[in-house]
Amino acid sequence: METITVYDIAREANVSVATVSRVLNDTAPVRESTRQKIMAIIEKHKFQPNALARSLVNKKTGMIGVLFPDSSNMFFPEVFGGAELAAQKLGYTLFLCNTFSDYSRESEYLNLLCERQVDGLILMGGRINARHCPASLVQEVVDIQRKIPIVMINGTLPGYSFHRVKTDEYLGTKLIVQHLIDRGHRHIGFLGGSAATTTTVEKLQAYQRTLEANHLTYRKEWVHFGSFSKSCGQQLMETFLAMSNRPTAILCINDYVAIGAMKTALSRGIRIPEDIAIAGFDDTQLASAMNPELTTVSQQSEQLGRQAMLNLSKLIQKEKVKKVTVLAPNLMIRQST
Amino acid sequence: METITVYDIAREANVSVATVSRVLNDTAPVRESTRQKIMAIIEKHKFQPNALARSLVNKKTGMIGVLFPDSSNMFFPEVFGGAELAAQKLGYTLFLCNTFSDYSRESEYLNLLCERQVDGLILMGGRINARHCPASLVQEVVDIQRKIPIVMINGTLPGYSFHRVKTDEYLGTKLIVQHLIDRGHRHIGFLGGSAATTTTVEKLQAYQRTLEANHLTYRKEWVHFGSFSKSCGQQLMETFLAMSNRPTAILCINDYVAIGAMKTALSRGIRIPEDIAIAGFDDTQLASAMNPELTTVSQQSEQLGRQAMLNLSKLIQKEKVKKVTVLAPNLMIRQST
Repeated sequence: METITVYDIAREANVSVATVSRVLNDTAPVRESTRQKIMAIIEKHKFQPNALARSLVNKKTGMIGVLFPDSSNMFFPEVFGGAELAAQKLGYTLFLCNTFSDYSRESEYLNLLCERQVDGLILMGGRINARHCPASLVQEVVDIQRKIPIVMINGTLPGYSFHRVKTDEYLGTKLIVQHLIDRGHRHIGFLGGSAATTTTVEKLQAYQRTLEANHLTYRKEWVHFGSFSKSCGQQLMETFLAMSNRPTAILCINDYVAIGAMKTALSRGIRIPEDIAIAGFDDTQLASAMNPELTTVSQQSEQLGRQAMLNLSKLIQKEKVKKVTVLAPNLMIRQST
Repeated sequence: METITVYDIAREANVSVATVSRVLNDTAPVRESTRQKIMAIIEKHKFQPNALARSLVNKKTGMIGVLFPDSSNMFFPEVFGGAELAAQKLGYTLFLCNTFSDYSRESEYLNLLCERQVDGLILMGGRINARHCPASLVQEVVDIQRKIPIVMINGTLPGYSFHRVKTDEYLGTKLIVQHLIDRGHRHIGFLGGSAATTTTVEKLQAYQRTLEANHLTYRKEWVHFGSFSKSCGQQLMETFLAMSNRPTAILCINDYVAIGAMKTALSRGIRIPEDIAIAGFDDTQLASAMNPELTTVSQQSEQLGRQAMLNLSKLIQKEKVKKVTVLAPNLMIRQST
């Protein structure tokens, strides 16, 4: 069977693709004669334009707003890449908004997206990962949710119940700490992240409890917060290397911090994993590109985005959706441990 | 002097940040008493909300649409990260649209953004890099440009004149080929990209002419197209390694292909750069993360995005803007060559 695209139809009807799209999605008026010409071509080729998309009765604008905190951390483009693929199949379009975790910028985008009548919102980062989120910022999202379905990825807001999709970061941390212990490590450090961020606190707890469950001592001097960047990993690794009693393995808050730590170690002639084992988190494309390849925890980033989009689509259709969908993390054992 | 943010004002007025934003930007009606309360607080603190932003007379919605082709290539998030920072200063918001270079998806987004009355558009990838772009797709953009200012990054469409911001990729390629020649290489291969893409053709020409200018022979068997991904680099590197008369240096179409090539070489015990030199293009964050670090050409990705946003803002203000702004590429010599 020949595959007919919107573009083929546009060419045959001698109109723009946008016009075909308008007819298919009924988003804007099209001259009746043009509409009929396009419909005839569609009939002729038995073209099935997003059968699923057309069946969605509660979809109004077909637009979804997506807030994400940081375009320089590949994890987020991976997540919204997955969301985009799902959106395409479901007949939605995504407006992605890069907030840099700036709360007032978040508010600005939320405001605009609501004015533009998006059918739903996907939120990542910023306030939904704040350990102490100001009440007015919480209230703003609560107010929006009365009108527009929201799905949060890897975060939430205190005092209210939201639809969430998350990877089990607690379990992921437990798995990787246990892996380091199983490799014979007794002295394991924790590097990067921020105590103001919920995900850091969750990982730290998992790290601490896994050590305890294995009768290993939790040592404050082996825990160093900072940020989520490569340069943080580079700097904090200097601190570890200067210690007389340094750990033999280090769990980093994410792949970026791990790569910074690796670079500092390698530049001093310290071998990985022989002299020190290093593990990351997220399994961004950086992890497998590295040499040695980085052991890390996959959050199934694309799947996270896809699942959030699927759940949101159901909410828009007023279907029942589990409040919290939890994806299993995958331990990716590579060369660095 | 104390720094007052929109958030402080919201707290003091006991309203949401969105409400303050509405008053400041006059984007939606706010109750008069609330407006006066907010204005009084603004006066009291001598708050300067985006002085520049408020002075922009021709700004209507303050919204800019940005089309980009591929969320899995870090180059694009780096570019729109730069655009976002400029937009924030200028008082604009960006709706980012991930098209995966699918022409009908591009049309869908263009259509929606125009309906939503964006003040301007920034286009990357997809049709503006097609070597043979269908006339109807060109016409669609031409029609939009009659109403809405457009800036294209690293691309254009045939037969019409558009405002463009680009890195000189021809010069960048020339610099890196010359660098390889200066390091003593006489046998230089070219790996990855697609003959259907304008940027690939431009780089190939620069490669060919730089070889000729140095009295070196251009050999078809040392040029292998494919795609722009790491896996393409891995596969095509196998082809090179299987050749009895293989090049001693390889220029890759971008960092992703280069990293794939490096991985294949390293996994066979081939040393970089001693046995084979490998160079990339773009200077994405991957390049300096690698071990050995990758020699590449910086396109100044953030600066590209920033410049596109600045030019677009001027166009919206009906100021005069150069048709084509060209950024100089920077040769980043690292360990892989």
